[in-house]
Amino acid sequence: VTSSLAGATDLVGYGPYLELAGCDDDAIARHAFDNREEAARARFALDLAAQGRNVVVVSSGDPGIFGMATAIVEELEHARDDFDVDVVIAPGVTAASAVAARVGAPLGHDFCCLSLSDLRKPWTLIERRLEAVGVADLVVALYNPASRRRESQLVRALEILGRHRAPETPVVLGTAIGRDGEAVCVTTLGELDATTVDMRTIVIVGSTTTRVFRDVHDRQWVYTPRSHPDDA
Amino acid sequence: VTSSLAGATDLVGYGPYLELAGCDDDAIARHAFDNREEAARARFALDLAAQGRNVVVVSSGDPGIFGMATAIVEELEHARDDFDVDVVIAPGVTAASAVAARVGAPLGHDFCCLSLSDLRKPWTLIERRLEAVGVADLVVALYNPASRRRESQLVRALEILGRHRAPETPVVLGTAIGRDGEAVCVTTLGELDATTVDMRTIVIVGSTTTRVFRDVHDRQWVYTPRSHPDDA
Repeated sequence: VTSSLAGATDLVGYGPYLELAGCDDDAIARHAFDNREEAARARFALDLAAQGRNVVVVSSGDPGIFGMATAIVEELEHARDDFDVDVVIAPGVTAASAVAARVGAPLGHDFCCLSLSDLRKPWTLIERRLEAVGVADLVVALYNPASRRRESQLVRALEILGRHRAPETPVVLGTAIGRDGEAVCVTTLGELDATTVDMRTIVIVGSTTTRVFRDVHDRQWVYTPRSHPDDA
Repeated sequence: VTSSLAGATDLVGYGPYLELAGCDDDAIARHAFDNREEAARARFALDLAAQGRNVVVVSSGDPGIFGMATAIVEELEHARDDFDVDVVIAPGVTAASAVAARVGAPLGHDFCCLSLSDLRKPWTLIERRLEAVGVADLVVALYNPASRRRESQLVRALEILGRHRAPETPVVLGTAIGRDGEAVCVTTLGELDATTVDMRTIVIVGSTTTRVFRDVHDRQWVYTPRSHPDDA
C-alpha cells in the first residue's frame, strides 16, 4: 500500500478500508463509499483519473479475487472511450491465503475459491459448482458465505459438500485476519454452526485428504498433503 | 520478507530464492537446497529451529499455495515429538494473483488452482478434477503445467477443458512476475502453443464468461465479470 500511495491525489474505497490504509496525508482527498456500490465506486475513480488525478482505489485482500479490480476493469470496458487512463493493479494476499496461514496449509494442494453470494449469479449455478467441487475432491474456500438476508445458503452448501465428504472433514473459519477482532476457528463439516458465520468470514472446507493434528505445544494445525492417493 | 528476516539466524530455501530474498547480512547463515528436495529442506529447517536457531524458510509466492508451508507442516506432523518449535507462516501473493493483476482480473469470479504435476497424485485424479472444473465453468489457474519430462499433459488438460469451452476462450500465460525475465501473454484455448509453456509458467484458462478487450491505449485486458447469467 505504501508505495502505491506515493503520488496519489485521491483515495477511493469502502470507508473502513480507507481508515485501514493508514494514510494521514491531508493533501490526499478521501472518497468513502458504501460497501455495495462497487460499480459506482469504480466509475467515480475512473472519472477522477480521466480528469488527470492520481487515484488509488483501496480494496482489502487481493483486489483481483472478489475485490475491486473486477469492477474497475468492467467499467473500463463498458465506457472505454470515456476513460483515457492508465490502470495499474497491485495484487495482494487474498483472504483465503491469510486464513490458511494462521492454521497451517489447508490450501496446500488443489483448491478453489467460490462466492456463495447469489446477487449476480443464479443459485442453481452455485449448486452446480459445489457439486463439481465435491466430485473433484477439491478443498474449497467460500467467500461471502452468509449475510443477514442469506442464512440458509451456507447450510445448503455444506449439505452438498457433505454428500462427498465425511462429517469429520476439517473446516476452518477465519475473520478479520491481521485486524482488530481477528478470529480463527477449526471445526468439522459435521459440527460447524452456520449461525456463527457472517459475510466477512472465509470458510475453508477440507478435501478427503485434509488433516488436523496438534503439535507439542498443543497448537492445532490443518493442512492438505501434497500427495493424494486416490485414483478412483 | 523484510520483517520476517528480523532476528533470523538462518535462511533455508531453493538457491535462487535465497538470492531474491535480498538479504545481505553476513551474520545470517544461508542453506541452499535443490528445488526438488522439499521434505528434506523442511526437516532441515525444523531441526535447526529445534536447536534454538531462528530459521526463515524462503518460498516464492504464497508458501501456503503449492509452496513450502505444506512440506513444513507435513514434517511437523510426522515427527512432532522431535520438533519443539514455534512455526509462523507468513502468507504471500500467489503466482496466479500476480499474473492476473498484470492483465486485469481473470480471477475476478469463482476459480480454482490446480497443479498438473503427477509426481504425488495419479493422473486419473487430475483428469477427474479438470473434467469437474469444466462442468462447473470455473476459471482455472494451472500450476506446474509442464516440465521437460511432461510435455503431453498440458495438451491433454487443455483438451479436457476444451470439451466445455470454445476455442476463443481467453488464456493468460505468465512467468517470473516482478522478476527479471517477466513474461505475460494473452492467447486463446484454440491458439495456445503448449511448447511455449514451462514449469514456471502459470496458465490461467478463462470460463465461458471471461472477456478480453482493448482500452484506448490499445492495451489488452482480461477479466471475468462478477455476474454469470447461466442457470442451466
